[in-house]
Amino acid sequence: MNVANRRRHHARQHPEVARYLSIISYVFPSVPFKSMADPRTLTAEGKLSEEFAVPSHVEEVKGQMAAFAVQHRAAGHRVVLITSGGTKVPLESRTVRFLDNFSSGRRGASSAEYFLESGYAVIFLHRHRSLYPFTRLYSGINLLDSLQLESGKGGSVSDQVVVNQQALPNIAKILMRYQAVKKAGLLLPVEFSTLSEYLHLLKAAAQALSPIGSNAMFYLAAAVSDFYIPASDMPEHKIQSSNGPLQISMKMVPKMLSPLVKDWAPQAFVISFKLETDPSILLDRARRALATYRHQAVVANVLDTRRGYVVVVTPDTQAELVLTDEEASRDVEIEDRIVSNLTAAHSQFITQQG
Amino acid sequence: MNVANRRRHHARQHPEVARYLSIISYVFPSVPFKSMADPRTLTAEGKLSEEFAVPSHVEEVKGQMAAFAVQHRAAGHRVVLITSGGTKVPLESRTVRFLDNFSSGRRGASSAEYFLESGYAVIFLHRHRSLYPFTRLYSGINLLDSLQLESGKGGSVSDQVVVNQQALPNIAKILMRYQAVKKAGLLLPVEFSTLSEYLHLLKAAAQALSPIGSNAMFYLAAAVSDFYIPASDMPEHKIQSSNGPLQISMKMVPKMLSPLVKDWAPQAFVISFKLETDPSILLDRARRALATYRHQAVVANVLDTRRGYVVVVTPDTQAELVLTDEEASRDVEIEDRIVSNLTAAHSQFITQQG
Repeated sequence: MNVANRRRHHARQHPEVARYLSIISYVFPSVPFKSMADPRTLTAEGKLSEEFAVPSHVEEVKGQMAAFAVQHRAAGHRVVLITSGGTKVPLESRTVRFLDNFSSGRRGASSAEYFLESGYAVIFLHRHRSLYPFTRLYSGINLLDSLQLESGKGGSVSDQVVVNQQALPNIAKILMRYQAVKKAGLLLPVEFSTLSEYLHLLKAAAQALSPIGSNAMFYLAAAVSDFYIPASDMPEHKIQSSNGPLQISMKMVPKMLSPLVKDWAPQAFVISFKLETDPSILLDRARRALATYRHQAVVANVLDTRRGYVVVVTPDTQAELVLTDEEASRDVEIEDRIVSNLTAAHSQFITQQG
Repeated sequence: MNVANRRRHHARQHPEVARYLSIISYVFPSVPFKSMADPRTLTAEGKLSEEFAVPSHVEEVKGQMAAFAVQHRAAGHRVVLITSGGTKVPLESRTVRFLDNFSSGRRGASSAEYFLESGYAVIFLHRHRSLYPFTRLYSGINLLDSLQLESGKGGSVSDQVVVNQQALPNIAKILMRYQAVKKAGLLLPVEFSTLSEYLHLLKAAAQALSPIGSNAMFYLAAAVSDFYIPASDMPEHKIQSSNGPLQISMKMVPKMLSPLVKDWAPQAFVISFKLETDPSILLDRARRALATYRHQAVVANVLDTRRGYVVVVTPDTQAELVLTDEEASRDVEIEDRIVSNLTAAHSQFITQQG
């Protein structure tokens, strides 16, 4: 048993199931709380399919991810699973209202480009309509503001629509890079919207990448809700505002990192993200996560400074990555640094595992 | 005093302020509820700036909207204010988590096109990144999948990037329509993200359109949250999941329709939308809204059938608008019917007012 495996073994002893449960209710003020469930009767694994509806396409997607991993590993690539964007937590079964997490998906989409540049094959598990690799550079630009009509020669009707390259800077260069990645089949996009979809697809991805062992990296940059309302506690119809003020009680989402590291992909190189708004608690939270889940690294960042400053925390090291103002003005991106740091650590990890 | 004004006068007597308030708290399970506020001490008007931060640009935007309305009215156009998309309700001051409403903004964006076709000038008050008139037709298509490189003549470096017109159907025609609208200055886009921004911008819009009297239409299609957490009750930092399950108590959002109809734009033609998931309560809710706010029409629709069936309810009439399967297959849109119905009703309203 090597060091990493021994660490994982120890982690099994941490009884985190106590986190998974307590008061469950979705109530208007006049309705009393339901009684407590026994927190020890549920495991993360059992709970997942019990409390979160399984998306119908999960097995099909799992097959695609497994084939993608094996094929690119055979061709000498490492494979990274990037999660990106926020999860949607419905408050009603026929959903009108939902809880969401602030996340444009910028970090995940940008990182995907640098992983591709470093020779990785990328599974991009992202929130529907969040930022996408390459295309992200033109988000927020109205498509129709960037196109112009060019009449066909000699008044023919074959009008061409061409891109105004001032409106979409570097579009020719970016388009070539995008098309090369697409042609090589190095990017496999998978979408989620709800928390349920995310959780089941992440589990499927972990199991699909398990066969390539330490050559798989998990780069868990998605902003996943910590809280949810179980389907059984949800009202079917839209909550009526005429019933008065709303009181919502939410359960805690099981931490997927725990079964991922212990059971689903025990040999993989796993990185989680920690976003806080209060810098004073950041490193403590990052260290605590590493101690709890026994994975390889935490990328810690503060909401206000996240584009110019992160700390990559491992059990033995702590690396501050900083962009200078001058670098930021040249459009250098911090994700370039994060990915360099982690791909190097991944190489070392593979050597140690071997 | 004409009939419409008399109706509005009566509406003033409805004491709805009782809706505006009650339990205010944002608590973890161990923290007791705060005491009740007196519901009668706050009015919608007073509450707005007290409880919802005023966006810094609201006066500037109000000026633009007022100038837009006067200018287009002088040119013989009627002006419609369309609200579109969902509102974001932050749960934390430095927002990581928020409550959102399901809404792509499709209905608002599509309706804007039909209003423009009917000769209206349109103020499009929409959620940031929700669907936009014309551009909406290509949402969900990856920009880079629809472009191709064309080499310059004779191997020159002046590469052109052109649109693959199979990937963006009708793009030349749509681009021409978009450019014509833009050139004529008939579309004024205004963006919101949070509920606070929406509420203040709607009030500003109502006041800005008031001078053109009955020539203004309000088409309130946005999915506005019924609930919010007052800034004073919000935690500054990200809620820590280690504190256990989350309990949220939300206050009711003041109904803007009431001061809009009574005070801000008392001569305008006002349409609200009612979306339900339960068809059995739909018409009752629509009639109740008309009785409460005394505005001109409610467009009532059910979540599952909203693209093919709506009922336009007025105090005296009820018109079912339905798309046949054959029409849907020809890409006829129900918004075409809704806008036809309402522009005709608006003409009649103007005549009666005159």
